[in-house]
Amino acid sequence: MSVKERGLLIVLSGPSGVGKGTVRKALFSQPDIQLQYSISVTTRKPREGEVDGVDYFFKTREQFEQMIRQNELLEWAEYVGNYYGTPIDYVEKTLQEGKDVFLEIEVQGAMQVRKVFPEALFIFLAPPSLSELRKRIEMRGTESEDLIRDRLQAAKEELEMMDAYDYVVENDQVELACERIKAIVMAEHCRRERVAQRYKKMLEVE
Amino acid sequence: MSVKERGLLIVLSGPSGVGKGTVRKALFSQPDIQLQYSISVTTRKPREGEVDGVDYFFKTREQFEQMIRQNELLEWAEYVGNYYGTPIDYVEKTLQEGKDVFLEIEVQGAMQVRKVFPEALFIFLAPPSLSELRKRIEMRGTESEDLIRDRLQAAKEELEMMDAYDYVVENDQVELACERIKAIVMAEHCRRERVAQRYKKMLEVE
Repeated sequence: MSVKERGLLIVLSGPSGVGKGTVRKALFSQPDIQLQYSISVTTRKPREGEVDGVDYFFKTREQFEQMIRQNELLEWAEYVGNYYGTPIDYVEKTLQEGKDVFLEIEVQGAMQVRKVFPEALFIFLAPPSLSELRKRIEMRGTESEDLIRDRLQAAKEELEMMDAYDYVVENDQVELACERIKAIVMAEHCRRERVAQRYKKMLEVE
Repeated sequence: MSVKERGLLIVLSGPSGVGKGTVRKALFSQPDIQLQYSISVTTRKPREGEVDGVDYFFKTREQFEQMIRQNELLEWAEYVGNYYGTPIDYVEKTLQEGKDVFLEIEVQGAMQVRKVFPEALFIFLAPPSLSELRKRIEMRGTESEDLIRDRLQAAKEELEMMDAYDYVVENDQVELACERIKAIVMAEHCRRERVAQRYKKMLEVE
């Protein structure tokens, strides 16, 4: 008898340079982490210390393009001349096993995932511009108006980007960002709709 | 210049006997807790060790009934011959200060709070009947059918009660229940709508 609940798909994304990779690595270096990291496929060359099947699945352009044609990728993008993508079979299989899957991908990729898995959790990793902005406004007079204007512009752009996300985690400190992501996953497992579904499944058994 | 965000109102409730008081005490014994506990008013006599203004505000029936007439209570109920209630002024003032307020109240009280603060977070503390039920079903054959039937009935009743709540926290272990409640509060502060509102407030400043 299977009463296994489908896992959650968690998508961490955000503007490039915000520190998505750093946060993901810090998250997965924690001993108690329950998430399954979905390893990306790429055509870029391995960097020093990177291991095939651990950091990435390294493929040739031909192999990658075949994966695209055969619909084996949940999302993919070309970035600085290289392909990056997420193999769909691992994600689907792991979710079916009841495990939570974690993707760390670019913003365009996140939008592709949303089309296939609208029920996924989309977390926007934001630079600490909001708290910086707050500080700068509070210290107004001692700061240049140009700097404040730049921060305001950055905040406006972030505000627009985050619209398609469920949660926003500010990356002011990597440790704190990890705590927030873990809290979001834990809280989502406690959402009444999800728990009620578990109850209903159990009661249907009768 | 004030860009202070209103605090969250967190309501912990659930069937009587589930251990709401125990979880609340464990939660507030933690050194890093950021929640403000809203002390209830009651007409029952202080028990050994209970301190006025710490555990409860102890009042006479006359005083309590005057509070009801003057609309000073956010919610109240009579329970085994005594009144219990939540003073509204403390809740409102603390939320305005940008602090999160925590209420631990009976199910009927939670429904009254929902009318005044529909935006509050309602957390249903559930007995560990679901995981017990699962275990019992898995061990079927070695367990009496009566016991399973009782558990199923209990699960059905819980399922109905939790309908009006946002989250369900199973009280299988007090420590774990506390972790889940803290995660829910942290996650809710990261919800995009809330963060976007903060951004918008900052941008309006200009």
